[in-house]
Amino acid sequence: MQFHKQLNSLIKTNNSLLCVGLDTDIEEDQFEFNKKIIDQTHDLVCAYKPNPAFYESHGLAGLRSLIATCDYLKATYRHIPIIIDAKRGDIGNTNKQYATYAFSYLGGDAITVMPYMGIESLKPFFAYKEKGIIVGCHSSNKGSEEFQDLIVGNVAVYEQVALNLIKQQGRNPNAMIFMGATYPDQLKRIREFVDDMTILVPGVGAQGASIQEVVEAGLNSKGTGLIINASRSIIFADDPRAAALQLRNEINMYRLSPDNK
Amino acid sequence: MQFHKQLNSLIKTNNSLLCVGLDTDIEEDQFEFNKKIIDQTHDLVCAYKPNPAFYESHGLAGLRSLIATCDYLKATYRHIPIIIDAKRGDIGNTNKQYATYAFSYLGGDAITVMPYMGIESLKPFFAYKEKGIIVGCHSSNKGSEEFQDLIVGNVAVYEQVALNLIKQQGRNPNAMIFMGATYPDQLKRIREFVDDMTILVPGVGAQGASIQEVVEAGLNSKGTGLIINASRSIIFADDPRAAALQLRNEINMYRLSPDNK
Repeated sequence: MQFHKQLNSLIKTNNSLLCVGLDTDIEEDQFEFNKKIIDQTHDLVCAYKPNPAFYESHGLAGLRSLIATCDYLKATYRHIPIIIDAKRGDIGNTNKQYATYAFSYLGGDAITVMPYMGIESLKPFFAYKEKGIIVGCHSSNKGSEEFQDLIVGNVAVYEQVALNLIKQQGRNPNAMIFMGATYPDQLKRIREFVDDMTILVPGVGAQGASIQEVVEAGLNSKGTGLIINASRSIIFADDPRAAALQLRNEINMYRLSPDNK
Repeated sequence: MQFHKQLNSLIKTNNSLLCVGLDTDIEEDQFEFNKKIIDQTHDLVCAYKPNPAFYESHGLAGLRSLIATCDYLKATYRHIPIIIDAKRGDIGNTNKQYATYAFSYLGGDAITVMPYMGIESLKPFFAYKEKGIIVGCHSSNKGSEEFQDLIVGNVAVYEQVALNLIKQQGRNPNAMIFMGATYPDQLKRIREFVDDMTILVPGVGAQGASIQEVVEAGLNSKGTGLIINASRSIIFADDPRAAALQLRNEINMYRLSPDNK
């Protein structure tokens, strides 16, 4: 199934733009931890986003947990899209291998990728027509302006990334970008560049961005077009379901306010 | 042991700037293949550079092969540095996980990382003071100019990456960059920016760069400062040892010519 259709269908069903990031930084069994989080939040999310780094650091045991997490989602909640937050980006023949890993081996529905080697280098990912390819545009960290906000000609580097993506991928609805929630001004500006494109927004919750600013800056003309991710603030909450419910509802409060209709 | 010392010691011992990239894109046992390559070439190289992508695509079996390859090198040829060519780059708490993977779990001596999120985001890698941190500056692929050659102020983006690295890491001899061999003009230009810094140069061999141009553009004032990588042209040669010997000697021919002394 096409990633963008699966995503938008679940956004409606669960009335949610919330994505839960499975950055499972624990010493115990990562899969058992994830399973509990998933079982408690599956009707409140539009996607799950495991970050392979948190599993790779545990070696073979970690990879087994990542596989088990993806398998469990496919077996039990196959309507929920899995975003492999791998931020991969290399030259073509290497990207082909990473795409095999994310899509064929893990069974992911989408992947985050990085643009430094050129949008053109990402072709092996886009060759998977049904999968979501989410290109890093502006990140949520403090040092992100170091290169991303440099001005080239009339635009910033992160804007040039979005422009090149649109130029090369046209209106491919599975071509998306990510924009850190901690930079709402840049998010607002990029929305003008990308029409109704779906934008993954990491960095709410533990990283402290304002939900109101993110929603008001990022919604598209249909009142959707955002995947808002929180990781640590939900998965390590005393009550992950309550934390997810609260965040989903807070997002919806601003999303459905008269100003954003 | 400090990566830069280990590397420069082996450059002298083996009289070689050649790095062999273990991009082992085969269906059979990847470790057994690598073991043969290593046994045939260990006295001709200054480093080995496995690229995790080619193992991740094989899932658990691939990761086992990557671990076995690193373990074999550590057990049998512990004087040879291992560069984990992972091209990772994310925000800080994620990079910490990737560093654990490359250094603690795999036992790598160096890693390639990507700068898009800022040199500042790479601190968790630099926290490993003995390890080599090789920052992507200019890649070897055709589309690399898409962002890397954009002009910001008076310099190109790839030059700004090198400048920021030097600004933030000072004369840390384990802070290095990589520059694709297929862009000798950019390599020559960057050498003026980075003094005697060691530069990893991928893209000779199958990607078709000129050895003479690379060596003449990239050597530092001491007639060294380059790690020249070839992957497919050596590991898939009919006679990998002969291919490695020929390439090492060709590099040395230009390296030791009167013009470059």
